[in-house]
Amino acid sequence: MDFHQNLNFIIEMLGTIAFAMSGSFAAMQKKFDPFGVVIIAFITSVGGGTVRDLLLNIHIFWMHDLTTCSIIFTTSIFSMIFKSLEKNFQVTLFIFDSFGLGLFTIIGLQKGLNADLHPIICVVLGTITGCFGGILRDVLLHKVPLIFRKEIYATACIIGGTSFLLLSKYTDLSNAVTKILTILLIVIIRTLAVKYHWEMPKFYIDKENSKLK
Amino acid sequence: MDFHQNLNFIIEMLGTIAFAMSGSFAAMQKKFDPFGVVIIAFITSVGGGTVRDLLLNIHIFWMHDLTTCSIIFTTSIFSMIFKSLEKNFQVTLFIFDSFGLGLFTIIGLQKGLNADLHPIICVVLGTITGCFGGILRDVLLHKVPLIFRKEIYATACIIGGTSFLLLSKYTDLSNAVTKILTILLIVIIRTLAVKYHWEMPKFYIDKENSKLK
Amino acid sequence: MDFHQNLNFIIEMLGTIAFAMSGSFAAMQKKFDPFGVVIIAFITSVGGGTVRDLLLNIHIFWMHDLTTCSIIFTTSIFSMIFKSLEKNFQVTLFIFDSFGLGLFTIIGLQKGLNADLHPIICVVLGTITGCFGGILRDVLLHKVPLIFRKEIYATACIIGGTSFLLLSKYTDLSNAVTKILTILLIVIIRTLAVKYHWEMPKFYIDKENSKLK
Repeated sequence: MDFHQNLNFIIEMLGTIAFAMSGSFAAMQKKFDPFGVVIIAFITSVGGGTVRDLLLNIHIFWMHDLTTCSIIFTTSIFSMIFKSLEKNFQVTLFIFDSFGLGLFTIIGLQKGLNADLHPIICVVLGTITGCFGGILRDVLLHKVPLIFRKEIYATACIIGGTSFLLLSKYTDLSNAVTKILTILLIVIIRTLAVKYHWEMPKFYIDKENSKLK
Repeated sequence: MDFHQNLNFIIEMLGTIAFAMSGSFAAMQKKFDPFGVVIIAFITSVGGGTVRDLLLNIHIFWMHDLTTCSIIFTTSIFSMIFKSLEKNFQVTLFIFDSFGLGLFTIIGLQKGLNADLHPIICVVLGTITGCFGGILRDVLLHKVPLIFRKEIYATACIIGGTSFLLLSKYTDLSNAVTKILTILLIVIIRTLAVKYHWEMPKFYIDKENSKLK
Repeated sequence: MDFHQNLNFIIEMLGTIAFAMSGSFAAMQKKFDPFGVVIIAFITSVGGGTVRDLLLNIHIFWMHDLTTCSIIFTTSIFSMIFKSLEKNFQVTLFIFDSFGLGLFTIIGLQKGLNADLHPIICVVLGTITGCFGGILRDVLLHKVPLIFRKEIYATACIIGGTSFLLLSKYTDLSNAVTKILTILLIVIIRTLAVKYHWEMPKFYIDKENSKLK
């Protein structure tokens, strides 16, 4: 395994851990039983990649090796045991989740490029890989998926994905450097968005008056 | 591209626009940010066809050309800009949505027939293509999918699909005429149902007393 | 068709009927129209197996024969007509649902083994087959999927699946006996769990104070 494969492997495992933790904590807040917590962690973590692999009609990435399943299971158990630490974990958790988003977006984009799809479709695939796990988690926990309206979540994916394509095409940076830069960009956008309560302008809202149901 | 392919292409594009508009307006009512609106428009518009293509194990229709994505993106931007016109649009929107339902049902049915499936399975596929985008939209917007209990939505698909099969088998009408007639039938059923508040008889309801949760 | 195939066929059909009934009753409680009831029955019944077949990238089991569709349709009509009997049915229904869970778990597990997957992935597949129909039903009916926190639902699948693998590997029991034993085990766990209000210990809850939203 050379450096580049190692990098991809590390990216994937860190993203898996990050999303498994976010799924576990969300499920524990809803008082799910331990196996429920493991299942939500699993769906949050592999959901985006599974949808991507189904759309690409390739082997589902977690079905032919045990690494992903073992990591999710371990992370999930670990999260339950250290639940009491959550308050101190809050910031760590947020950082992990943002890295997960960045990491998974890049993996999805790369798989789209490997399948010779149009760059715009690749950005769509990257966004699906990054966001779908969280969407499934929120749907199963019976919440409005927050990613659609808060904290520039999907927006960070799309900006990151586009930057990756532009950097790859118009600069001489190596693939590894481009990947790391893009992941950092997504993490920074997310972090600044949460810190300063950035939201996308909703120019259509002002006309709205109590139409919400 | 001959007349028949042109007809199919026009049917698909009109349906895509109709569902992208219905997704955009629904997401704006829930105050999603602009990228959230685009994503909901996308899922509403391609959801049914994606599930159909996954079930048929064929190429996902929107992944290998940009037309669908561009149309959805444009429609979605257009909807956000002209949001203020919504009241005047309400009727137009309803008509578009009904046409979308009719158009997508026929496309799904046709793809099932092309795959040599049993006519009843084809009606099921047509219903999935027509209804699933709207179901996913409502699940993501955290609403009970209305299509199950109001306005004879799924019922219109099933009646339309069955009529298409009967007309194809027992009359000499050309495929194009049959398609257009079926789409009109679905639109008319939907329109009359909404205008006169038709509902399917729920013969099992009268025994019910406050069992709803 | 020999004895073993007959057994598998009977297992699959009983599971289909059980889940179609549970879907129909749940949809009627939410006052869906008759076609809505049929659609929910359909999704509850084939949902788990469809996700499994998509993940395995094999033919979707219900698309190439009419048996499954006919059985679901008939069960659903039958449920609507005999709705008034529901109170007397409650216990029967619960037993059917538990059998459905056991039956579908074993089918999923067997399909995973046939595809030469690792035993742990097979247990995951069995759990998905058994639980996903019910999850989809609850999501579409706009309820928190109860299976995650009540009545040891997913837990029963996982214990059952593991027992099946251990019995197959370390005993000389025939495949048919092992299957029947496992199904009975899942049903018994579910029944005892409901009767005595068993829940998995939630060792992480006591630290929780009003964090629920």
